[in-house]
Amino acid sequence: MTAKFISIEGIEGAGKSTQLAFIQQFLTDHGKQLTVTREPGGTELGEQVRSLLLAPTDTPMAVNTELLLMFAARAEHVAQVIRPALERGDWVLSDRFTDATFAYQGGGRGINQQRIRELEQWTLSGLQPDVTFLFDLPVELGQQRVLNRNQGVDRFEQEKVDFFEKVKQCYLQRAKNDPKRIKVIDASCSITEIQTQLRTILQTLV
Amino acid sequence: MTAKFISIEGIEGAGKSTQLAFIQQFLTDHGKQLTVTREPGGTELGEQVRSLLLAPTDTPMAVNTELLLMFAARAEHVAQVIRPALERGDWVLSDRFTDATFAYQGGGRGINQQRIRELEQWTLSGLQPDVTFLFDLPVELGQQRVLNRNQGVDRFEQEKVDFFEKVKQCYLQRAKNDPKRIKVIDASCSITEIQTQLRTILQTLV
Repeated sequence: MTAKFISIEGIEGAGKSTQLAFIQQFLTDHGKQLTVTREPGGTELGEQVRSLLLAPTDTPMAVNTELLLMFAARAEHVAQVIRPALERGDWVLSDRFTDATFAYQGGGRGINQQRIRELEQWTLSGLQPDVTFLFDLPVELGQQRVLNRNQGVDRFEQEKVDFFEKVKQCYLQRAKNDPKRIKVIDASCSITEIQTQLRTILQTLV
Repeated sequence: MTAKFISIEGIEGAGKSTQLAFIQQFLTDHGKQLTVTREPGGTELGEQVRSLLLAPTDTPMAVNTELLLMFAARAEHVAQVIRPALERGDWVLSDRFTDATFAYQGGGRGINQQRIRELEQWTLSGLQPDVTFLFDLPVELGQQRVLNRNQGVDRFEQEKVDFFEKVKQCYLQRAKNDPKRIKVIDASCSITEIQTQLRTILQTLV
């Protein structure tokens, strides 16, 4: 079976890191060579762009700047990491990919979705994950979890509830439009229940 | 007379810095409030992006990444610096602007010009300089001047003669298509001759 590209998505506090580790373990246990990566970031340049994007700042960044930086990092990520990995037969597991841009810069910031589709088309030639796990939970619960982490918040985590509500709704709309690729996981369940759901889906892939 | 937006362009070694200082002095002498800036850069974020763009590197940057970083920095530059300056009545003098992207990423790297026009349109709403001075000279002469500076070369200056030849030809083509805005100055002339030409044009603006 050919290597697959899996992304995980969700608002802050949805438990992506924990579930990423579970998916990674599952695939490794099934003998898959795996490249684990993240966005924004995934390359030396991309991680520097990530720092620019996440640094809390007093001057709000222009929304087009944010969108273009996201795609600049992604173009590099795809060219240097994701495509080469898939070509050599590695599975790729990415913490966020283009769905996040539709959700955060499209839904959250209000950038025209058609503009994002155009950037997706010409920078990635339409590359999409084979499967995307969308960890969904009520915004307030996610925010509570972020606060409980007891660490500083980044520029996105500083946003208010209505921003994350728009992000969440955009994610869910995308899942509704593409249910074959985007699997919605109820992240307010217990970790055991979530991992049971993940295992069921992962078993159909390996 | 309303404030004007002036950009200066040219390949490496064309003497832009010297002439920028001359234009700045001329405008100041004529009582103009002036914002002097540069691209890529011009904002705190933009200067950080500039460092990413110019740093010599062993891994070639994907061409789409380079294009998107240029426009990310420019969107921020326009939003934070250029438009506010023009709105408060300052003249703006920028060392490079979008013509450089057409020349370097379009002409030099071979990115489709239509793609650059689309980015220009939606990130800048078509904002263009009122006047652009294009300092033109033979590529070999420009390269000789860069070497004589006796300092390290950046990622663009590392490029070969044929890259700069394409950049130069693209600049000249744009000047041919828009002679009212883009004034070609023969940068192989003496500084005195160049400044005589500049003065003649500047006197029509102030």
